[in-house]
Order: sequence, then structure tokens, then C-alpha cells
Amino acid sequence: MRNVTAENITEVFMGYLAEDTDPRLREIMGSLVKHLHDFARETRLTHEEWRRGIAFLEGCAAVESEDRHEFVLASDVLGLSSLIDMIHSEPASTSSSVLGPFHVSGAPPLAYGGDMKRHYGGPVLLAEGTIRDTEGNPIAGAELDIWQTAPNGLYASQDEEQDTYSFHGLMTVGDDGRYAFTTVKPVEYTVPSDGPVGDILRACGRHPWRPSHLHYIVTAPGYRPLVTEIFPDDDPYLDEDTVFGVRSDLVMHYDERPASAFPEGLAISGKVTEPFLHVTFDITLSKDTK
Amino acid sequence: MRNVTAENITEVFMGYLAEDTDPRLREIMGSLVKHLHDFARETRLTHEEWRRGIAFLEGCAAVESEDRHEFVLASDVLGLSSLIDMIHSEPASTSSSVLGPFHVSGAPPLAYGGDMKRHYGGPVLLAEGTIRDTEGNPIAGAELDIWQTAPNGLYASQDEEQDTYSFHGLMTVGDDGRYAFTTVKPVEYTVPSDGPVGDILRACGRHPWRPSHLHYIVTAPGYRPLVTEIFPDDDPYLDEDTVFGVRSDLVMHYDERPASAFPEGLAISGKVTEPFLHVTFDITLSKDTK
Repeated sequence: MRNVTAENITEVFMGYLAEDTDPRLREIMGSLVKHLHDFARETRLTHEEWRRGIAFLEGCAAVESEDRHEFVLASDVLGLSSLIDMIHSEPASTSSSVLGPFHVSGAPPLAYGGDMKRHYGGPVLLAEGTIRDTEGNPIAGAELDIWQTAPNGLYASQDEEQDTYSFHGLMTVGDDGRYAFTTVKPVEYTVPSDGPVGDILRACGRHPWRPSHLHYIVTAPGYRPLVTEIFPDDDPYLDEDTVFGVRSDLVMHYDERPASAFPEGLAISGKVTEPFLHVTFDITLSKDTK
Repeated sequence: MRNVTAENITEVFMGYLAEDTDPRLREIMGSLVKHLHDFARETRLTHEEWRRGIAFLEGCAAVESEDRHEFVLASDVLGLSSLIDMIHSEPASTSSSVLGPFHVSGAPPLAYGGDMKRHYGGPVLLAEGTIRDTEGNPIAGAELDIWQTAPNGLYASQDEEQDTYSFHGLMTVGDDGRYAFTTVKPVEYTVPSDGPVGDILRACGRHPWRPSHLHYIVTAPGYRPLVTEIFPDDDPYLDEDTVFGVRSDLVMHYDERPASAFPEGLAISGKVTEPFLHVTFDITLSKDTK
């Protein structure tokens, strides 16, 4: 097409695709390029603005590494990651939330009632609940992959002071579908803001904070995997999570209980001499219909 | 906002922007994020497809270097670069075309009638024309920054066999606005296709070819700079330039002339013993009204 114009270029682009292009790829490229072109046409994006966009991508490339996922972070702070979670969430199951970049495979097993707090300071939190199907029946053998920040606001992968699997644990529930573990109350933290994504946040007058949360991946054979988070209802960033991860049904009250109320037989119980926090968070998985 | 939904997230995003955000940045981020979200909603983009998109960006990051600009290339083959050229082109001036990644600053001066072909084989091409304003008056002192591929289809920056400024030249025109130089006929070539952008082209059944061209940046004080290209009308890729750079007014006939018709006094003239190619390409610059 030797007479490409600002008006017809989207159509010309589609004409370049081979007839036997995979239909789903054609759909995705068509929508992507239409929106990319409409964005440029609507804003009359200048060459200088385009150069700044390219410089943003090149800046992300410069900091990208095995431990630093700047493109994922960009997707997170632009709301794309959360949007994809929500598009594919099952109304009948517990809400999903962003996976984020801090999950690590291979967490060590954690028995029912086990302890992730170990020697760390801060308030003891006892988290418990039941994993059920959409009819309310417990899902025996469901797996709960748990991770969270240490009291310093850092995940193990960000922090040389922590072991690889510090504040990571993998619990398999029994026939009653119940899980319980002790940990330290997670704290709010900032996403990495010393790179190009941080520059965008600052230019938009946005902060880099995420509300505190426990992060779970819940899986069971025959059920859709669920990535979710539990937020305490007193967190100051609930209404302004920089990655848009909060859903109403994921906000829970952490109630304070006296040391004497601590259940017998949990791994940490001998050590609980002060009031502790308690949260119940039941989880519903929907059947995998694929 | 603790009840973010797939429907309201775009609005929630805009609510995160500080009130004193630069209005142009607000406009650009608003349009970008609306289109990004609409793209995901329309296609119901899956997590796996999102991961492939992130992997594409990370793959671009992995090959990005001072000599390899994969993000620019992605913009080029998606038509974004050409679209921005067209949005900002002046109807009264010669059409602009893509800058591409191969321009190098600091090209050596080339006198009127100078030669860029040197020892290279291939057909001699005499290119000439006049640089004028929109009233048809010559623009004295206009500068023409010229670059093109060698006969092997490579630019100097891609080819260890060539000098840094091989097939690059900078000509300043006199009072008559005229330029002329000899070179070798440029050849069609492929954009780099061994990276993630090449993978996308292949998945879409697209080829990586660009039609042959001479590349110019034309500048003069008080006029809008023009980046443009001249394409010969017999090139097989005119209707399918992989970066969408061809415009009708940039397609020219290269006519063959006998050696005896070669003008006296040009740098190469003593050496012309066979028929040569000739193209006239006049250029119109519009006033810089900013």
C-alpha cells in the first residue's frame, strides 16, 4: 500500500496479516493495533512524546532482571494485571487478586497449625479458615501456597537478611478443608519505585504503597486455581492500593485476643504470652470446567 | 477504592492521578490506559496471553542495545512510527517518512555533485533536486543529511566491513537550493528479524522487507525539519513496506541514461563509462510556525 494515511493505516496493517494467521492472534493483534493507533490519533502524540515512551520501555529494559520485573510492575500500576484477574474471576468463588512479582516456587511444607513467624518480632497473627467448593463442601487435599512480607516490609527475594523461603509456606489441608498457621502481621510496603515505573508514579502524583496482606495461591485437582490476598480492615491504603488489588470480600477484620485464648496444640502456642491477632478467611474455589 | 471492578478500573485509575498532574500527561495517560483496558476487555485477554505479552517485552529488553533498537522496531512494524509521522506531516510540504534506527549523526560533508559510491560496485545513481519553500522559492543554505544501504543491503552501523560514515553524507545547498550527488542504487533490505519482533512478523505471516530508498533529513533555519525517503517505482515491496513508510509522492522513476549524458564536473564523472540511473526529487519544506 503506497498511499498509507493516518486514517487507513490500521486497515493496511490488518491487510498485512496472512490469511492463515491464527484467528485468536488476528483478534488480539487487531484489537491491540486499533487501540494503539486510536491512542496516537486521539492524543495527536508528538514525536517527542513517542521518544519519551520508547525511552520508558528502554529504561524498563535497563533495570529488568531475574529479581526485578519492571514490565510486570508497569502492568500492575496501570491496572492491567488486576483487570485481567477480574475479567477471568468466577463470581461464585473468592475474588482473585494480583500475583505480583514476589511469589517463589518450592516453598517448604507447613503443617496444620505451623508457624511462619519464627524468631521475627511483631504481633503474632493466627490465620485460619476452610477451603470449600461452591456448594460449601470442604475440599480435602487442597493446597495453600502462602507468602508475605517480613516485618521490615520486604519479601525474602528482596532481602539478603532473610532465608530464601522466609515467610513462605505450603500447606495441604485435610478432609475438613481447614487450614491454620501463625505468622507475624504483614505490613504495608512500597512497590519498587527507583526505576522508570516509579518516575511515572511521581509524574502522576501517585504513591507506590500497597496495603498489607497475606498472599495465597489455592489449588486443588478439578478446581480453578485461585491467586488471592487478605487485607486487614484497618490498613490505611485499602482505598488506594497502587496495583488495584483490593476487593471488598478480601478485606477482613484482624481481632485481638488474649494470650489465654490461643488454641492448644499449634506450633507456636507455648510462646504466646501476649495478646495475639486472629483472622478467619474462608475460601471458595469453583470447579475447573475446561 | 476497595471495590475495583473490570468495569470501573479505568475510572479508578484516573482518580489516582493527583489534581495538579500536568494536563498533557493526564490526557496521554488517560487515553493510553483507557485503550489498554479496552483492549483487555474486548479480547478478554487471558493470563497466559498476558504472560506472552510480558515475555515479548522482556525478550525485546534482552536484545536491546546501542546498535539494536527492538522497541523502536516494534513501533515501526505496528505502524505507530509512521502514523505519528503522518499525524504531524504538513500537507504543503513533501511527505515525511520513518526515521528508522540507522541514521547516524556527524556525517562527513559532501560537496555539490559529490560522490558517495566510491569503490562500491553496482549501478551508479545520480540523484538531484531543488529544496524549495511552499511558494516555490529555493531555500539557500538548506542542509541535506543523506544515508542509505550499501549494495549488500546493510547500513554502515550494521556492517563491520564499512567505515562508520559509509553511504552517509551531509550537503549544504547554495543560493539556487540545488543538490546533486552520485551514489550506488540502494537495495531493498530486511529489518532485523532474529528477535521478538521477527517472531511476531512470522506468527502473522508477514515478511520483514523494506523497499529500497535514499533516506534524507532536510533542515533549514525557520523551516520544519523533514525526514523523508525516495523510493524507486520498480521496487517489488512498494505496496508492502513492513514499516509502512511509502507515500505516493515519494515514489520516483529512476531513468537510465547513457554514460555520455553524465553531467560534466561532478566528482564521479570521469569514471562513468556505462549507462547510469538518474532521479530528480525536489523537496518542499514548510515554515516552522512554532
